[in-house]
Amino acid sequence: MALKARVLYDFHSENPGEISITENELVTLFSEEELDGWLEGENSRGEAGLFPASYVEITRDQITSNTNNNGLSSPKAVTPTHTSYTSPESQRGLGAGSGGSGGGSFHTSQGSDDDWDDDWDDSSPTDAAQGMGTSPPLYPVTSSLPGRRDSSQQHQQQAKSSATVGRNLNRFSTFVKSGGEAFLLGEASAFVKDGDRICVVMSKNGPEWQEDPYPFMCTIDDPTKQTKFKGMKSYMSYGLTPTHTNVQVNRRYKHFDWLYARLVERFPVISVPHLPEKQATGRFEEDFISKRRKGLIWWMNHMITHPVLARCDVFQHFLTCGADEKAWKMGKRKAERDELVGSNFFLTISTPAVPLDLQEVESKIEGFKSFTKRMDENIVVVNVTINDFARKQITGFKKEYQKVGQSFALLGQAFELDQQAYSGGLNRAIAYTGEAYEQVGEYFAEQPRRDLAPISDLLDLYRGHLANFPDIIHVQKGALTKVKDCPKQEGELHDRCNIISCATLAEIQHFHRTRVRDFRSQMQHHLQEQIGFFQKITAKLQDALQKYDDDQ
Amino acid sequence: MALKARVLYDFHSENPGEISITENELVTLFSEEELDGWLEGENSRGEAGLFPASYVEITRDQITSNTNNNGLSSPKAVTPTHTSYTSPESQRGLGAGSGGSGGGSFHTSQGSDDDWDDDWDDSSPTDAAQGMGTSPPLYPVTSSLPGRRDSSQQHQQQAKSSATVGRNLNRFSTFVKSGGEAFLLGEASAFVKDGDRICVVMSKNGPEWQEDPYPFMCTIDDPTKQTKFKGMKSYMSYGLTPTHTNVQVNRRYKHFDWLYARLVERFPVISVPHLPEKQATGRFEEDFISKRRKGLIWWMNHMITHPVLARCDVFQHFLTCGADEKAWKMGKRKAERDELVGSNFFLTISTPAVPLDLQEVESKIEGFKSFTKRMDENIVVVNVTINDFARKQITGFKKEYQKVGQSFALLGQAFELDQQAYSGGLNRAIAYTGEAYEQVGEYFAEQPRRDLAPISDLLDLYRGHLANFPDIIHVQKGALTKVKDCPKQEGELHDRCNIISCATLAEIQHFHRTRVRDFRSQMQHHLQEQIGFFQKITAKLQDALQKYDDDQ
Repeated sequence: MALKARVLYDFHSENPGEISITENELVTLFSEEELDGWLEGENSRGEAGLFPASYVEITRDQITSNTNNNGLSSPKAVTPTHTSYTSPESQRGLGAGSGGSGGGSFHTSQGSDDDWDDDWDDSSPTDAAQGMGTSPPLYPVTSSLPGRRDSSQQHQQQAKSSATVGRNLNRFSTFVKSGGEAFLLGEASAFVKDGDRICVVMSKNGPEWQEDPYPFMCTIDDPTKQTKFKGMKSYMSYGLTPTHTNVQVNRRYKHFDWLYARLVERFPVISVPHLPEKQATGRFEEDFISKRRKGLIWWMNHMITHPVLARCDVFQHFLTCGADEKAWKMGKRKAERDELVGSNFFLTISTPAVPLDLQEVESKIEGFKSFTKRMDENIVVVNVTINDFARKQITGFKKEYQKVGQSFALLGQAFELDQQAYSGGLNRAIAYTGEAYEQVGEYFAEQPRRDLAPISDLLDLYRGHLANFPDIIHVQKGALTKVKDCPKQEGELHDRCNIISCATLAEIQHFHRTRVRDFRSQMQHHLQEQIGFFQKITAKLQDALQKYDDDQ
Repeated sequence: MALKARVLYDFHSENPGEISITENELVTLFSEEELDGWLEGENSRGEAGLFPASYVEITRDQITSNTNNNGLSSPKAVTPTHTSYTSPESQRGLGAGSGGSGGGSFHTSQGSDDDWDDDWDDSSPTDAAQGMGTSPPLYPVTSSLPGRRDSSQQHQQQAKSSATVGRNLNRFSTFVKSGGEAFLLGEASAFVKDGDRICVVMSKNGPEWQEDPYPFMCTIDDPTKQTKFKGMKSYMSYGLTPTHTNVQVNRRYKHFDWLYARLVERFPVISVPHLPEKQATGRFEEDFISKRRKGLIWWMNHMITHPVLARCDVFQHFLTCGADEKAWKMGKRKAERDELVGSNFFLTISTPAVPLDLQEVESKIEGFKSFTKRMDENIVVVNVTINDFARKQITGFKKEYQKVGQSFALLGQAFELDQQAYSGGLNRAIAYTGEAYEQVGEYFAEQPRRDLAPISDLLDLYRGHLANFPDIIHVQKGALTKVKDCPKQEGELHDRCNIISCATLAEIQHFHRTRVRDFRSQMQHHLQEQIGFFQKITAKLQDALQKYDDDQ
């Protein structure tokens, strides 16, 4: 029995395997199962092939478009995929190319995910779509949109509330959007299981997240190329192996992207590390795949060492759910239905027994604000400098050493016109010296990807964190301002403000610890690489020097 | 009793200690003794001070102007000091700044010698003279003019000769000027003592100069500043210590210059190494004094290792004559009266028993001509390249490393805003890393003078030799052509042509041996320096790396 679908938008096939479909046309579906946002069927002209699922509406009611094979895509979401709500403040100090969505705001994939994967795909449907004007959706879409459910939830909560404290007039402020205001006003309500509880403990450095009692690691293998549609479509898949299960799971970039959106929604005052950029910058002329993988390794490293993020259900689901589609889908739905997001997140926080001195909190937060500002400014300089330095090594330095090598080679060639026995050894040694310098030039060109690119990657990750913090600080400041404005309700508000403050300071403390750890290890790595590099040059020149003693 | 002198040209004092004198004026001399071309006296206006000796004529006949204190200067020679007779061919391939007078041509100082010394002299009389027009002589003049006596000697010889073989019509050809033609035509005649005899021996590589049985070395100390005229004039003096006497003698540049002129005149087919340039090039921003000293060391090295030059009387006089003015003057006059110059030089040559095959000689000479052409072309490229490379290291490379250092310093400064105990160690380590990179920048800037400047100096010296050889080859070719043209006189001409050829080939062989020795040792030195340089950088970075383990 033939399934039918009505075409919503014109689609022009531009790649083998695709068919063109026209608005209002009825097409026959071979199956209601989508494959990554594509359906297979036959158009009214009898051509069979693929077309984007989001371009058609299935005409039989009992078939929902969510029963797709791939549990991670929500192909029916007809929304521009470049959605990114970010407060202007969170963008401050962000250079071009930094992923830049702040904590508390959210971020979907920066462009279609297949767009990314299709870097290894000869037949890109996205390329075709880009020629088609703006009215139809981009296809296939990738992540679900946390903002939608989130806002409806907020509306519910707002309807329930009996507001005795004035609301923030700016409905788009991060304080409001993050759920901070709702929590402070006592509007948050959800059942918090013991397993969901997040503890802030008091250390000599102030509030900190309680350490993860079961730390683990996670390796990311080189991505492998996967194909579907009998080889017509391809994508890259990353093998992740967490040490606590020691079972490899395979994830695509869009799965990372989906996870990221969940985390941002879930944790208003936690700085979720940004995913590596979608766009290849070509910086250091590094291989694109390798660069993204390195970015994901950095990202993973920040995830697994964050006491809250590492433990949370959605991340664990992402890390541990195997090839069982059903299990994956269940976990996915559970995450998407999670109630403990936004304002309810704060319900999960257990604070130390003694509340914080809010004056002291305010001063700490101010200090941190200055810190992030300066760090942001200065790492921009560092990034520009080392990128510049990398470029110089790849071009100028290499060229200079090679020119020296070539000129020594010329000298050797001139000397070879004298064929007396006693000059042969020198001629060979000079020729070798010429080659050695050419090689040293190559060494210079190869080096930046080893010792400068990793620093640049680290700086990128930290620019992401620094872009997150203004929103995080905004939430805490919003709470503090509200407390100051309403002295009569001070008791309850004060307790809730204490929770927000504890969480914020714990996150700041975690940031500093991570920063010291990361920069220490990265600087060490950089210096080790540099030392190895100069030793390699030294060895090459020692080889050359040796030649002058040979055949003398 | 007052000595008087009549003024020949106007002289305008422009420096303290000098007095102005006017043409035809009578001046009173305080002494008939000149000091480096200057006299001290009183003019008709009662002003007392110095004026150039060559601007006046002493009115009492019994006093000769040659009884000066300084035996080396011949201050009365009223001749432009920029004399330099050089065949156009000898200039081929010479870049700007190479001293460039060929063998067989001669060369006086390139400008007044005091001009040179006055780089350390506040009151330069030469500066004053330069404003004075062209009619009076430049003052003080420095070296005697070998060309004058030389040409009169040639005239004598030419008058004596009974020419049966056609003369070269070009009286300015090197073949003629060097005395090569006169010798070939049997016009040379002089008494040759056994000690003057120069042996060419046959080795497996062809004719070679017989090795010096008493080789020696000679050190050149840092020059010291000497003053005269109660501190008003100053000059630099070089302490030379030859190992065969182990007694230090002091020589000024003008003494080197005088010696050079003697040697060029004495040895028509020997490549006398050029003296280091008069002009400071500022290359490598090297200290000027140090650069000249290094040039003189190279020069000395070539002198003492040349079997003929090292042994010759005038050089030995130069190296060994101490502070005894009388002894110096005697040796100087003896050298200037030496008969065994030009054509007579060839009378001193003892050849191997079996005469050379002139065909083979011709082909060897041709091969050498190609060799010098290629070497000359290629060392120009090498010189440009390494000078360029030096400049890049001093400017660009240094700047790049320092910029990296500064950016790390900035990172450290940002981090210092976080004053928690656990970040102090990292902050100090990053600050140290910044300093280390600044230091590495300095290393790069300092390095070229250690490992590129010496190569450049060596190339300069060899460009001098390569500029000498066209004239040397010209003498041999002139002789060969004459022999071919006059078959009937073949016997005698052939013998003399054999002498010229043996000497030329011995000199070429010496050039190759010296070249292989010099370039081998210089390339070794360069590589050793480079290795030390990269090891120094490595050590600095290892220090920096160590800091990350300290105070962790």
